[in-house]
Amino acid sequence: MPDFALDQQLAADSLPVTELALSSVRLMRDANYPWLLLVPRRPGLVEIVDLTEPDRITLMEEIATVSQALRETVRSDKLNVAALGNSVPQLHVHVVARRRDDAAWPNPIWGAAPRRHYAEGEAEALAAKLARRLK
Amino acid sequence: MPDFALDQQLAADSLPVTELALSSVRLMRDANYPWLLLVPRRPGLVEIVDLTEPDRITLMEEIATVSQALRETVRSDKLNVAALGNSVPQLHVHVVARRRDDAAWPNPIWGAAPRRHYAEGEAEALAAKLARRLK
Repeated sequence: MPDFALDQQLAADSLPVTELALSSVRLMRDANYPWLLLVPRRPGLVEIVDLTEPDRITLMEEIATVSQALRETVRSDKLNVAALGNSVPQLHVHVVARRRDDAAWPNPIWGAAPRRHYAEGEAEALAAKLARRLK
Repeated sequence: MPDFALDQQLAADSLPVTELALSSVRLMRDANYPWLLLVPRRPGLVEIVDLTEPDRITLMEEIATVSQALRETVRSDKLNVAALGNSVPQLHVHVVARRRDDAAWPNPIWGAAPRRHYAEGEAEALAAKLARRLK
């Protein structure tokens, strides 16, 4: 099995926030929603059920940690947590802060609204703020 | 805090499969996709992060158990696992077997295709088959 390498599409669509014990945390480059990804650094993994049991438990705790950090950092009416992977199979978990006035509410975000660019430096500033909370 | 009661919308949209330690397992009445719900029997819960840590770990293991049962029971090219709750806030986790030829592929299923009714007795038969695997 080769070493873990982040999927190129995920890498292009997001910027790094921090590294947790199991997962890389990344911020999606879409200003419509505060939208994080957790990517477990396990090569070849596609489904949550195919993680080992200890890794699954770590992933769940990292989902909770990131959810809490997101909720404390941005305004959020609801969290959306999802592992879909129909287009990008590398296992990744979306953790999204939803707002009743966001571009897709109450629908799921995937494919719902055209991507909106962050202003210069804004995504990096949010990623840094989240990283400090996740230390 | 009142006792747990299943949300009326979830109850109307699904039929019972089995009861696990934490969650009720239900089959959505939509023949487009083999589509299960896990509903932790905790009153007032909305977000995964608001479950206690032991409950979160149990939920993760129930997600894995149900994922495996679904994969062994129906044809599946990809699992989709999601806690959204924008419309029905009671915490529920979708576990859906996706197929490359299903009604929404590769898009998420929510709102993607009109609900398709199961033939008479078909949903109950699938629920019973899944329940046997989950014993």
